[in-house]
Amino acid sequence: MTDSVTLKDICDHVGGEILSGSPDSVITGVSSIQDAGPADICYYGSSRYARYLGTTSAMAVMVSRPVTTSADCVLLVDNAYDAFRKVLHLFIPDRSTGFSHVHSSSVVHPTAEIGKEVEIGPCVVIDRDCVLGDNCSIGAGSVLGPGVVIGSDCFIHSNVTLLADTVLGSKVVIHSGTVLGSDGFGFVPDPGGKHKKIPQNGNVIIGNSVEIGANCTIDRAVTGSTRIGDHTKLDNLIQVAHNVCIGRGCFIAAQTGIAGSTVVGNGVVFGGQAGIGGHIVINDGAIIAAKSGVTKEVAAGTTVSGNPARPHMETLRLGAAVSRLPGIIELVKVLNSDK
Amino acid sequence: MTDSVTLKDICDHVGGEILSGSPDSVITGVSSIQDAGPADICYYGSSRYARYLGTTSAMAVMVSRPVTTSADCVLLVDNAYDAFRKVLHLFIPDRSTGFSHVHSSSVVHPTAEIGKEVEIGPCVVIDRDCVLGDNCSIGAGSVLGPGVVIGSDCFIHSNVTLLADTVLGSKVVIHSGTVLGSDGFGFVPDPGGKHKKIPQNGNVIIGNSVEIGANCTIDRAVTGSTRIGDHTKLDNLIQVAHNVCIGRGCFIAAQTGIAGSTVVGNGVVFGGQAGIGGHIVINDGAIIAAKSGVTKEVAAGTTVSGNPARPHMETLRLGAAVSRLPGIIELVKVLNSDK
Amino acid sequence: MTDSVTLKDICDHVGGEILSGSPDSVITGVSSIQDAGPADICYYGSSRYARYLGTTSAMAVMVSRPVTTSADCVLLVDNAYDAFRKVLHLFIPDRSTGFSHVHSSSVVHPTAEIGKEVEIGPCVVIDRDCVLGDNCSIGAGSVLGPGVVIGSDCFIHSNVTLLADTVLGSKVVIHSGTVLGSDGFGFVPDPGGKHKKIPQNGNVIIGNSVEIGANCTIDRAVTGSTRIGDHTKLDNLIQVAHNVCIGRGCFIAAQTGIAGSTVVGNGVVFGGQAGIGGHIVINDGAIIAAKSGVTKEVAAGTTVSGNPARPHMETLRLGAAVSRLPGIIELVKVLNSDK
Repeated sequence: MTDSVTLKDICDHVGGEILSGSPDSVITGVSSIQDAGPADICYYGSSRYARYLGTTSAMAVMVSRPVTTSADCVLLVDNAYDAFRKVLHLFIPDRSTGFSHVHSSSVVHPTAEIGKEVEIGPCVVIDRDCVLGDNCSIGAGSVLGPGVVIGSDCFIHSNVTLLADTVLGSKVVIHSGTVLGSDGFGFVPDPGGKHKKIPQNGNVIIGNSVEIGANCTIDRAVTGSTRIGDHTKLDNLIQVAHNVCIGRGCFIAAQTGIAGSTVVGNGVVFGGQAGIGGHIVINDGAIIAAKSGVTKEVAAGTTVSGNPARPHMETLRLGAAVSRLPGIIELVKVLNSDK
Repeated sequence: MTDSVTLKDICDHVGGEILSGSPDSVITGVSSIQDAGPADICYYGSSRYARYLGTTSAMAVMVSRPVTTSADCVLLVDNAYDAFRKVLHLFIPDRSTGFSHVHSSSVVHPTAEIGKEVEIGPCVVIDRDCVLGDNCSIGAGSVLGPGVVIGSDCFIHSNVTLLADTVLGSKVVIHSGTVLGSDGFGFVPDPGGKHKKIPQNGNVIIGNSVEIGANCTIDRAVTGSTRIGDHTKLDNLIQVAHNVCIGRGCFIAAQTGIAGSTVVGNGVVFGGQAGIGGHIVINDGAIIAAKSGVTKEVAAGTTVSGNPARPHMETLRLGAAVSRLPGIIELVKVLNSDK
Repeated sequence: MTDSVTLKDICDHVGGEILSGSPDSVITGVSSIQDAGPADICYYGSSRYARYLGTTSAMAVMVSRPVTTSADCVLLVDNAYDAFRKVLHLFIPDRSTGFSHVHSSSVVHPTAEIGKEVEIGPCVVIDRDCVLGDNCSIGAGSVLGPGVVIGSDCFIHSNVTLLADTVLGSKVVIHSGTVLGSDGFGFVPDPGGKHKKIPQNGNVIIGNSVEIGANCTIDRAVTGSTRIGDHTKLDNLIQVAHNVCIGRGCFIAAQTGIAGSTVVGNGVVFGGQAGIGGHIVINDGAIIAAKSGVTKEVAAGTTVSGNPARPHMETLRLGAAVSRLPGIIELVKVLNSDK
């Protein structure tokens, strides 16, 4: 973490241009435009925050080209949000653990293969035949079942559970409380109520550069694998059922649930609390609005919303019609009494 | 786990009839019909997968009587899904822990009574006065609070939390991250905002052969017990509030929430992300569609959907009417201008 | 926990008046009106339970003034629900751990400052530079990352994760499985799908007397803090995204999700499974009905419902209109054929 840098340092770091303000201004932190203090740098990301442009106390504001605004000290950049990202990197707080790299309270099975420069926190459990790549970090209290395989540069936060035979690529981040490889929900219903469990013989395979939020659940497959493709990002409290296959570069917002065997293409975006039925295909680039209930295939590049989910324009059209319905009913009554 | 068996072995195991194909064919795995390799057996479970019948690479396909289809090698059975279940049992992978049966890092209070052949994983904590039946397995990192009582043949996965006085029957499976016995959400609201907590003096009682998915929460009762009946199965991320009473043989899909004191009968089925209000009765055999918001009693054997939930046929009827609404509005405008 | 008390003892404890029944009656437990046994006291809280007033086996029933009912033994109080709360305090079961106050299996970094009378359970991990106030209890398996600061009289249940730099006030209760301080969900989308993570440099700050249920997730801020105000109560499985700011004395029911940077005033009530978009303001005293999808500012003291959320009266009005729609369509058809 940087203690302070000059505006010029930041300008060089983000590849910007100082439109106004002194290059020698000393900047000690990064903040939002509304909360910034006089030694902070911030960014202007949306017209929603336009009212703060004139009033922010920030030392400097990063603004995307073309500039259409004035503030006391403006750093002009191609993409203010990406510049914000770069500046945040300069000010990441030190969150390193105080414990030794492989803590003595951790329990690592002798058959586990541990790569170089791996941090294993207190009370971590790593069962037989696990393989961990180089530069991984396993947070305190996390449990890796038998045969878990993890690539290099993965960060597993505290109290994560990776059950038997789960496979992670490289540069994967798993947040606390998340469970990978729990049994899928499969039973042969019994008329007498004594339902019989379908053994869940498969596993979970996570691609490279995937990030999975806190307290998510991703079930193992019945046979084969439940899969999440490279660069896909999951928020918190998300359910991914058995045999779901999610493509690359998707965004899935919190509390979304995807039922069994559904196939999600690449670059699909899910709003929060969306629910996707089982055995459905969501094609590349689709957008599923928050709280949607998807019951059938979604075409590539389309946006759906509502429950049951429809093309978003249709949802809006029907919603507008319903808003007018009380008046229409009154009008129909008049027409009926006039006839 | 079996390495390989013949088609005849499987035929005997599931009680089927080889309609076509060689009894001596060697089968090395079980798979879905779309992913099966040339030494796999699979099943045909739904017309949704009919297109794969002619193209599957599987060595053999299990099909329910009466057969209405042709594939290269068909094993005819009464119930293909149940036969699939039986075959999966032949191929369950070895997921046994590499650790000793009661790991030295576990912390078991001297007053706890532990049955025979119990596995206690690393970093497990079992507090005073717990009682564990024979043949139970407690996964690494799980915590059993004071006075927890567990029947025989239970499987508690890793990082589960069973809080004080929780009672499980026999053959119960609890998946990772699940919490049983957290406090119910009860407060006396205070106009000044300093709400007063209602002590939650009760507990949680789980019947026999219940399975509870990952990261679920089941709150203890205010007084008495929150109860889940025999053979009921819960998926992941489900909330069961204090004093809820769920009957036998129910299925509850992921992310469903049931508010306080609601009573659920036997054989009730909940779709995913359903929400049930408090102090409601859901009678035997009801079906609650995914994403429903149930605000009042549901009659036995009926299906409800929508929010607020209505009889499903009514939801469909209203949904169809709404779809026609924009056209109806246009027609009313014409009628009005014509009058 | 009390073994038994007399009705007079309870009358004195709750500040009531014995309307009928003997002051010397011995009471051994507290229960709901429907489940009460002959030595239990219960309360009458809602007309929903009126049918039990004449049939309850309870020794005594606490009823709010003015009394409008008769039962065999009535204890008249100002607020029956609050009296129930007070009596529950008399009968709280002993759930104290059997383990020593700082268990030998816990891992506490030498730089951590631990207050007086702090209980630290087995397999707890407390990283460098943590500060714990007096009389705190940290349940088995919980993990406190570097720099976590906790006030006095906090109760952290088992398997909780408080990540780096999380700050709790005093008298805070955190239930099992909950994660505070996981990274917010922030990425700069990349057209090629290789989305770039926004570092989440901020933290989580929780006020005094806050209670957070089981398996919740509260993300750290990008910059600054995600905040929850004094006396606010969260149920289970709730998602609070980065930079959300929640006021004092709010109630948030289970499975609700609040997206990033949303600001919630004081005394706001959320029903279960509500979803609140990002960058929204919910003003003081608003009520958000269960399953609402809030997409824009909610005025102080108003109730909203539906998805997208509208003023509740409007939701009801539109719902009633939709219920009439099939009949209206028939009528329009008749009018059209008559014209």
